[in-house]
Amino acid sequence: MHLLQQTIDAVAMLDVDATRDAEQRQGQLTKPRGSLGVLEDLSVRLSGIAAVCPPPVPEPAALAIFAADHGVHAQGVTPWPQEVTAQMVANFVAGGAAVNVLARQQHVEVMVVDVGVAADLEPAPALLSRKVRRGTRDLAVEPAMTRDEAVAAVETGIAVARDLVTAGHRCLLTGDMGIANTTASSALVAAFTGASPAETTGRGTGVDDATLRRKVDVVEAALASRPVGDDPLETLASVGGLEHAAIAGYVLGAAARGVPVVLDGVIAGAAALVVQALCPEAVGYCVAGHRSAEPGHTLALAALGLRPLVDLDLRLGEGSGAVLALPLVQASARILREMATFDSAGVTEKEAPA
Amino acid sequence: MHLLQQTIDAVAMLDVDATRDAEQRQGQLTKPRGSLGVLEDLSVRLSGIAAVCPPPVPEPAALAIFAADHGVHAQGVTPWPQEVTAQMVANFVAGGAAVNVLARQQHVEVMVVDVGVAADLEPAPALLSRKVRRGTRDLAVEPAMTRDEAVAAVETGIAVARDLVTAGHRCLLTGDMGIANTTASSALVAAFTGASPAETTGRGTGVDDATLRRKVDVVEAALASRPVGDDPLETLASVGGLEHAAIAGYVLGAAARGVPVVLDGVIAGAAALVVQALCPEAVGYCVAGHRSAEPGHTLALAALGLRPLVDLDLRLGEGSGAVLALPLVQASARILREMATFDSAGVTEKEAPA
Repeated sequence: MHLLQQTIDAVAMLDVDATRDAEQRQGQLTKPRGSLGVLEDLSVRLSGIAAVCPPPVPEPAALAIFAADHGVHAQGVTPWPQEVTAQMVANFVAGGAAVNVLARQQHVEVMVVDVGVAADLEPAPALLSRKVRRGTRDLAVEPAMTRDEAVAAVETGIAVARDLVTAGHRCLLTGDMGIANTTASSALVAAFTGASPAETTGRGTGVDDATLRRKVDVVEAALASRPVGDDPLETLASVGGLEHAAIAGYVLGAAARGVPVVLDGVIAGAAALVVQALCPEAVGYCVAGHRSAEPGHTLALAALGLRPLVDLDLRLGEGSGAVLALPLVQASARILREMATFDSAGVTEKEAPA
Repeated sequence: MHLLQQTIDAVAMLDVDATRDAEQRQGQLTKPRGSLGVLEDLSVRLSGIAAVCPPPVPEPAALAIFAADHGVHAQGVTPWPQEVTAQMVANFVAGGAAVNVLARQQHVEVMVVDVGVAADLEPAPALLSRKVRRGTRDLAVEPAMTRDEAVAAVETGIAVARDLVTAGHRCLLTGDMGIANTTASSALVAAFTGASPAETTGRGTGVDDATLRRKVDVVEAALASRPVGDDPLETLASVGGLEHAAIAGYVLGAAARGVPVVLDGVIAGAAALVVQALCPEAVGYCVAGHRSAEPGHTLALAALGLRPLVDLDLRLGEGSGAVLALPLVQASARILREMATFDSAGVTEKEAPA
């Protein structure tokens, strides 16, 4: 808890001077003002994060995939067996998963952090063993974690972010693996946004109608039997996952060190709602990589005030949407750094309207 | 005209076997089926284009920026002076424009093709001089081009695509520069989709209300005084630009050689409507890089049946949206090439629904 509070206290507001300089500079570059749309806003935010204009290009980048299992799997909320979590960790370590392919293309370092897989995993160089417990308890029956377990997972995420920044990474991406984790995400989004479980729950990796109804029922029952109060850590412990907790810490850790974080999909979005409740300033360091096909993700992004960069009906997780968005993030900084100005290029500015 | 007809005749249907193989392979990869959304469909199409599954990663990529001026500039449809076209060509050649910055990040070769700039340009290695005429005539007053001029510009684009493929490029991106060219685009989109000029006309690089009304009036008057018939080349000549014609040829040239083309924004979208009218099969080789903020672009994409990859309120042109989309295109092919299958990775498939 000491590390968590220390980290929250270390998150600074985005730098006002750098933000203003970036807005001014965007108006001097050889393009119509505003013509790079969302990328201009993003470049301004990256300047505020780095406290300098132009900001450095956010590279090298690292992706931490936080893996954990979920007791709620017992409720039949997914057609995938629980052992797939561990199998996919092995796939990540071997470099065969979708996110590995995407990360190789974008030169992103991939590490897997076991914060709670319900199986013993083969040690591997790219795998960090930080098991808080072997999967959460079943959130349909009891709180998924104790408060101490939730804090331990959050602090694991903080430490991972700290170590990656210390190792030289200047952009952190979130990833996740955990069979049944869209159910926990749906509960977190409902708890933090006030939306109903029917609105926040989707088909995850592709469930049928009966399973979707079961997911909604499970989330409704959990939130009804253990109403969430004002304590974000209590809410996280009650219905969240160990990877949600770790991702929340990872985001806080990156923000505390002044490094932007690219969020992946609905699991990261749910975790970012925890972050927002603990430390609203930290949301300024978050870039929404993509909009997932999960309805809860759109609700989470709206609550966070973030506009996603990629919107391609992805619903894979792993960090795939964050990695796909990375070149857009890097491009926005590069524009501020490398483009010519009207003056330097001898290009005539448009006439002021008559 | 001979080269144009020969090129149209050389465009093959997408390969059915490779398309089917790609669909099957997507179902064997270690991810829920469909979870990579639009990228899965794109990978299937790239397989059909390459006539092999998995398809090669579309690289190296080249961007041709077709530059030309527009007689309709005289109608006051933009606050930018016409000389900015030539100034921006110089900026491209010097590497200072937005698209240069983006292209450097994505390792895209950039060339500029002068198909009709109304000024003498300094020779430069990255600048190809293929001036068909010094700007179009004023489409508000008379046909913008003769039919022969339009065909000459189309065949210039074909030759540029041919030479880039011969030089080893395996993905071609469209770019454009031409002050006032959103007015001509609006006219083309209205002519080819049947939408009204009020629907197809937008603020381009940022015009005020009065100028927007003038743009709409100009397009309405042109289409009323010279109604478009069934001949796409006649329509192109009547209200299009030299860069629209060249881009149409460039797309046809790429399709004829079996290479995918990433379209930029509304200028490319308008040109692709000409392509669709001349040779519907060629649209199969087109990837919509992004959705521009111009309303005519959304109408053009709908008519083409293409879903854009990037949707970030860009309205710059130059090829910027195409370059930003390139990593997504390359990622989709790489997924088919490099991902592990359920069998090879020892990952359990999900249970069939009960």
